[in-house]
Amino acid sequence: MTDSAYAWFEREQRERGIDMTQVKARLNALKIETPSWGYADQGTRFQTFKKAGAARTVQEKLEDAAMVHRLTGACPNVAIHIPWDHTEDYGKLAADAKSLGIGIGAVNPNLFQEHDYMLGSVTHHEPEVRRRAVEHLLDCVDIARATGSDALSLWFADGTNYPGQGDIRQRKAWMEESLREMYRALDPGMRMLIEYKFFEPAFYHTDLADWGMAYNLALKLGPQAEVLVDTGHHPQGTNIEHIVAYLLDEGRLGGFHFNARKYADDDLIVGSANPYELFLIFSQIVLAENDSANPLVQRTAGRIAYMIDQSHNIEAKVPAMIRSVMNVQTQYAKALLINWNALAEAQQAGDVLEAEAAVRDAFEQNVTPLLHAVREEAGLPADPMRAFKTSGYAERIVSARSSAVNAR
Amino acid sequence: MTDSAYAWFEREQRERGIDMTQVKARLNALKIETPSWGYADQGTRFQTFKKAGAARTVQEKLEDAAMVHRLTGACPNVAIHIPWDHTEDYGKLAADAKSLGIGIGAVNPNLFQEHDYMLGSVTHHEPEVRRRAVEHLLDCVDIARATGSDALSLWFADGTNYPGQGDIRQRKAWMEESLREMYRALDPGMRMLIEYKFFEPAFYHTDLADWGMAYNLALKLGPQAEVLVDTGHHPQGTNIEHIVAYLLDEGRLGGFHFNARKYADDDLIVGSANPYELFLIFSQIVLAENDSANPLVQRTAGRIAYMIDQSHNIEAKVPAMIRSVMNVQTQYAKALLINWNALAEAQQAGDVLEAEAAVRDAFEQNVTPLLHAVREEAGLPADPMRAFKTSGYAERIVSARSSAVNAR
Amino acid sequence: MTDSAYAWFEREQRERGIDMTQVKARLNALKIETPSWGYADQGTRFQTFKKAGAARTVQEKLEDAAMVHRLTGACPNVAIHIPWDHTEDYGKLAADAKSLGIGIGAVNPNLFQEHDYMLGSVTHHEPEVRRRAVEHLLDCVDIARATGSDALSLWFADGTNYPGQGDIRQRKAWMEESLREMYRALDPGMRMLIEYKFFEPAFYHTDLADWGMAYNLALKLGPQAEVLVDTGHHPQGTNIEHIVAYLLDEGRLGGFHFNARKYADDDLIVGSANPYELFLIFSQIVLAENDSANPLVQRTAGRIAYMIDQSHNIEAKVPAMIRSVMNVQTQYAKALLINWNALAEAQQAGDVLEAEAAVRDAFEQNVTPLLHAVREEAGLPADPMRAFKTSGYAERIVSARSSAVNAR
Amino acid sequence: MTDSAYAWFEREQRERGIDMTQVKARLNALKIETPSWGYADQGTRFQTFKKAGAARTVQEKLEDAAMVHRLTGACPNVAIHIPWDHTEDYGKLAADAKSLGIGIGAVNPNLFQEHDYMLGSVTHHEPEVRRRAVEHLLDCVDIARATGSDALSLWFADGTNYPGQGDIRQRKAWMEESLREMYRALDPGMRMLIEYKFFEPAFYHTDLADWGMAYNLALKLGPQAEVLVDTGHHPQGTNIEHIVAYLLDEGRLGGFHFNARKYADDDLIVGSANPYELFLIFSQIVLAENDSANPLVQRTAGRIAYMIDQSHNIEAKVPAMIRSVMNVQTQYAKALLINWNALAEAQQAGDVLEAEAAVRDAFEQNVTPLLHAVREEAGLPADPMRAFKTSGYAERIVSARSSAVNAR
Repeated sequence: MTDSAYAWFEREQRERGIDMTQVKARLNALKIETPSWGYADQGTRFQTFKKAGAARTVQEKLEDAAMVHRLTGACPNVAIHIPWDHTEDYGKLAADAKSLGIGIGAVNPNLFQEHDYMLGSVTHHEPEVRRRAVEHLLDCVDIARATGSDALSLWFADGTNYPGQGDIRQRKAWMEESLREMYRALDPGMRMLIEYKFFEPAFYHTDLADWGMAYNLALKLGPQAEVLVDTGHHPQGTNIEHIVAYLLDEGRLGGFHFNARKYADDDLIVGSANPYELFLIFSQIVLAENDSANPLVQRTAGRIAYMIDQSHNIEAKVPAMIRSVMNVQTQYAKALLINWNALAEAQQAGDVLEAEAAVRDAFEQNVTPLLHAVREEAGLPADPMRAFKTSGYAERIVSARSSAVNAR
Repeated sequence: MTDSAYAWFEREQRERGIDMTQVKARLNALKIETPSWGYADQGTRFQTFKKAGAARTVQEKLEDAAMVHRLTGACPNVAIHIPWDHTEDYGKLAADAKSLGIGIGAVNPNLFQEHDYMLGSVTHHEPEVRRRAVEHLLDCVDIARATGSDALSLWFADGTNYPGQGDIRQRKAWMEESLREMYRALDPGMRMLIEYKFFEPAFYHTDLADWGMAYNLALKLGPQAEVLVDTGHHPQGTNIEHIVAYLLDEGRLGGFHFNARKYADDDLIVGSANPYELFLIFSQIVLAENDSANPLVQRTAGRIAYMIDQSHNIEAKVPAMIRSVMNVQTQYAKALLINWNALAEAQQAGDVLEAEAAVRDAFEQNVTPLLHAVREEAGLPADPMRAFKTSGYAERIVSARSSAVNAR
Repeated sequence: MTDSAYAWFEREQRERGIDMTQVKARLNALKIETPSWGYADQGTRFQTFKKAGAARTVQEKLEDAAMVHRLTGACPNVAIHIPWDHTEDYGKLAADAKSLGIGIGAVNPNLFQEHDYMLGSVTHHEPEVRRRAVEHLLDCVDIARATGSDALSLWFADGTNYPGQGDIRQRKAWMEESLREMYRALDPGMRMLIEYKFFEPAFYHTDLADWGMAYNLALKLGPQAEVLVDTGHHPQGTNIEHIVAYLLDEGRLGGFHFNARKYADDDLIVGSANPYELFLIFSQIVLAENDSANPLVQRTAGRIAYMIDQSHNIEAKVPAMIRSVMNVQTQYAKALLINWNALAEAQQAGDVLEAEAAVRDAFEQNVTPLLHAVREEAGLPADPMRAFKTSGYAERIVSARSSAVNAR
Repeated sequence: MTDSAYAWFEREQRERGIDMTQVKARLNALKIETPSWGYADQGTRFQTFKKAGAARTVQEKLEDAAMVHRLTGACPNVAIHIPWDHTEDYGKLAADAKSLGIGIGAVNPNLFQEHDYMLGSVTHHEPEVRRRAVEHLLDCVDIARATGSDALSLWFADGTNYPGQGDIRQRKAWMEESLREMYRALDPGMRMLIEYKFFEPAFYHTDLADWGMAYNLALKLGPQAEVLVDTGHHPQGTNIEHIVAYLLDEGRLGGFHFNARKYADDDLIVGSANPYELFLIFSQIVLAENDSANPLVQRTAGRIAYMIDQSHNIEAKVPAMIRSVMNVQTQYAKALLINWNALAEAQQAGDVLEAEAAVRDAFEQNVTPLLHAVREEAGLPADPMRAFKTSGYAERIVSARSSAVNAR
């Protein structure tokens, strides 16, 4: 059935002017990093509901991440969070991951849980606290080196809750100074991905509040610094794909933290709240990937770090991650089905309705047969969710992880 | 100095046409309920920073609340949260409070922390869970009776995170059915205050999402049910004072949960983010208090339950509460300084600029001398914040509460 | 090709458990009213760009509306706006419409363009202005009677720009009083559809600001008063489908003004900004249509007035309207493809991921073959946009409407 | 009475540690540019209500601007909008202004009203349209030269309404190319102030959507290019004072377009919706003015172009402008009353409550006596609003401007 469904699909796309060989190759090349912390219990400020089977140790998180990769073939790396995933021997951690068929992805420093950091970390008014924070950043560079990771993913909760609480420009200077020291410690092949956030947990001002602040900082630091776009970190009404296009154009789009939200930074499953938005983000990426006339843009698009960063407060964690990966594949697949010639023609003619239709028409395609075919050709289960259900994995981890080991 | 500052102030207000005797009497009558949970540690989803001296037991919370009342004279009641403040003998709890010079205010059921309630409480799809939730509501009516409280303050986290997760209309029916049972258990003098919230911790839909849903439910239940307005529970751009005026007009404004926010439900100190908004809310209340032609509106305004509900994540708790009370007094005082005749005249003349000026002019008055005078006449410290600092209370609780007793 | 595409589609849906006969019947029954003003020039506050061929007279608007109905078969009625569509003989207007194959839909009073209404119409502080406004409303009831329309669609720009500008509760009373007089003038079969709006053109407070205010007013007026939901009239982050479900449940959902927006009330083509939101709205409607256990809900769902209300500032008007109709059909079709049994089962099991998947899976279907088939079976062009392009209509109206007749 | 009110005020401020001599000097130095278009009729997309006495010609606008300056002493320049204020002889325009006691401020090109610009101006897909737009920009440089203006204030409506309508990155390149050509035409002393806007009238994407895009463009163009902050051009929840501090720190804050809003870009009277926000903006400016350790920041703060840009849809225009100027003065005055030493001390101690109080305490001062004193010492009316009322000016322009001359 899948075969014929795909055959039908391919015929339709050929009629729409789409080269399916290229589409399938690019779908195959899409890799999405899953976060170790997405396999552990998380919650809202009101409650963290404990889930049977949730990973409690870094080893269990690796196992879950490996399971997601086994079923999807798309998630060869797992991001780690320090100190949540702290271990005495990071070389061993990398080896453990490797033995499970995966690798260590971005290293995420954590500078928001120690009591010292209550009023800031790299922007704290006390030099001792800033020093401690910078040392943690430097440690994370070492951890990246030890685990073979080439990316440091930086999110700072730093900010203030009230007018007057901090000296905004002074904190800006401290942020720059701190990151400059970290930047100097990077190995040549390493990338520093700078994340920004509109609000929370700082409620009055956040030191890195928007893409402009992250971008300007990256500009000052140097070419290994890039901007990380978390899809949930924008004010309502923001055109995220515009920001994505802008950063691609400047050669500074480092990667994504994918998730979805209706109002604030809800950290829901990517693609579940507004799938069209995710599709439009990928439309800009596909267009940049195609832009052979602009090597900077094309190269930038080609090395985007796609990462998931969600909070599965009420969902079963492993299948929530599989669903997330599938949602990303779905919208990337749809973006690959845009007929760019038709679009450019309509734009050139100033035909607003046709141009809009050229984009939306791709979105309205049902790409399920395509994704099934691509997976099966790669020796993967056509439907990873169904494969997970029948795998017995969920039952196994529930029974295996029944003790009270605590982990985040 | 204060005396002459007030003398000067009074002269200025007399020239503005304000009757200061009435203003002072009304300021004296303003009572604000503080929440027991505001004296304990709270946090964001990222971290709850432990504060030295934070209350760990219900007894310690009562002591802090009593201290706030001692310094402000404005906070005779403390709201309790069940089961956070659970105790075996609620009569004794009331007696303990009384011996400290305060009383028990609104009883707040908690239906969002048990694992059973992960997908809902009174709107859960399993009848057993709904039953359990309703029993808790009925218990809280008993607790109100036992503590001499006349108000039940109801906030439900109930809602869903994803389209399809729940049957919205079915959940609406369950909400109504559950509250109807609770309503029937109320004693004649008790009030059920129904709170609504735009989002969080349910991120797709909240069963009671806005004032309209809370109001319609109150209408159905009967005259003892009223709407509770939490100032942080609205979408951006909402005109809260309009909702307040509307509910006053319908005789269904039960009370407030005061706090402030810049973006979401940040639960910052009331009056700290946008003091003018708080002033405009009080303007509608003062106007309603004055409305002798409409007894329903006047009576409704006269019995509003003013309650604080905040999350002091980074602030010292007792002074944060004192500051909150003072901020509320400040804006109520300013609203009392509106020259209503001048305002009505400008409105009647269609003079937009004069009407706006009549309101804003009151806001621009510095009411510090007035508040100092009112407090001193009542035998209270002119500046409760300063009085707290010199009281030694902060130091006492830090040393007394050094053990690891856990409390929320 | 279409035939076989549909055959394939039908087979897939059968496997998904969908009864296509019923789906097609319901798609056929969907009727969408287009607005006369959508065929004339409109703009932003910055500029109204004049379009060649835009309708300049009510007769030209009727012709355009008739063309849209001819091509879609789904738009038998056209809404009118008074005085924009004022005519001396409304019986003749209805006859003209009939001769073109369409009828007159909702009558929309206009109370926002006269200088008298600058500070309000039915809520103006001067009784003469209120009287004039009410007379206009009564005239519109007469016009509805004369044109055979059974619906009055009421949107009020009434509100204020500044705190203090108006007496909010007094204006509320005037609103109620004015509409009560209009309500009494309604014929038994007529419906009064009350629209609300979050902001604009009143920027501080709008007298009917949200669904709760419109609903409460409808409750007071009586059963012929219902709420009209304009999809663009909500604050950011609002769950519109929740409001729709709520009003359906209370039997007070009168109809829709469809359009789309990214930030404010942008009045873009419906379904173009966030198609999933439109789908989710229709999901609630389909569920209500299915609710044979609740006759009130089912009847309410069955008589919803679907109306388009957009501002085609830069688009060619007739094709923009056709596209809008097609977008509505697309999302209604997708909502009809939800497997409700699978959804209910997942909800009952508390399986968040499966429940969400049951909804989204329907959205991911490509309904183009279905819509083509339904249209062709009804003797309509499979693709109304293409049919319009080849019809020569655009060219005809450009040349016919070259004189400078002014119309809105 | 004023004298003694001020004497009292001064005593209080001295006790608060404020140097009133400096405060008064800085208040005197504050100059605010009013916009020629603010004296003419403006409206919403629903209606532009014609006001008796509204300016109809550039000469009448100059007269009104001169009247505002006469009464406030704070508005020596008037911004012009081309072609709204087009004239054959710009030297004569400057001379006319001078003879009225004022000068020509920023020159504002208008690229959003011609039919050609419907789909863009400097970013239009047709080279002819871009050329025409650039020529207009170059003309405006000439006009600046001819009128003695040293500032070009650039706002572009350019953007798109729908996904796909335009090629975002291509438009970005065209924007840069166009402005580069204009930049090269600037005289050495001229400043190019680049404005950004979150949305409207482009509803999907705006080519210069936020401060980051305007700033990055300014960086590329050179030191004469700076960012213009319009207070209404941000998404809800934005911390505008943070952006102001950021741009000051980078030496690129060129100026402001002041206005107020509750939801979108409502263009209400500055300081009327959220006065605390305006105060906090000025707090950052005052802090930067004080920053003698950082000459770049201090110089940048010292040459900010303060400009009003509002739409007085329902207000009498001249007094609306006077009120706006007074509101700006009020909040600047309050910001000057912050005790910066106390603030720095609290920040250094990590005392959140004291730091917040240090800022808010200044806001709570009633600065009316101060402003009266400063004005009287400068030979100006203490209350410009009252002076306007008794001046007879309003009556004069109503009778003088009764003919139907059209102007914007």
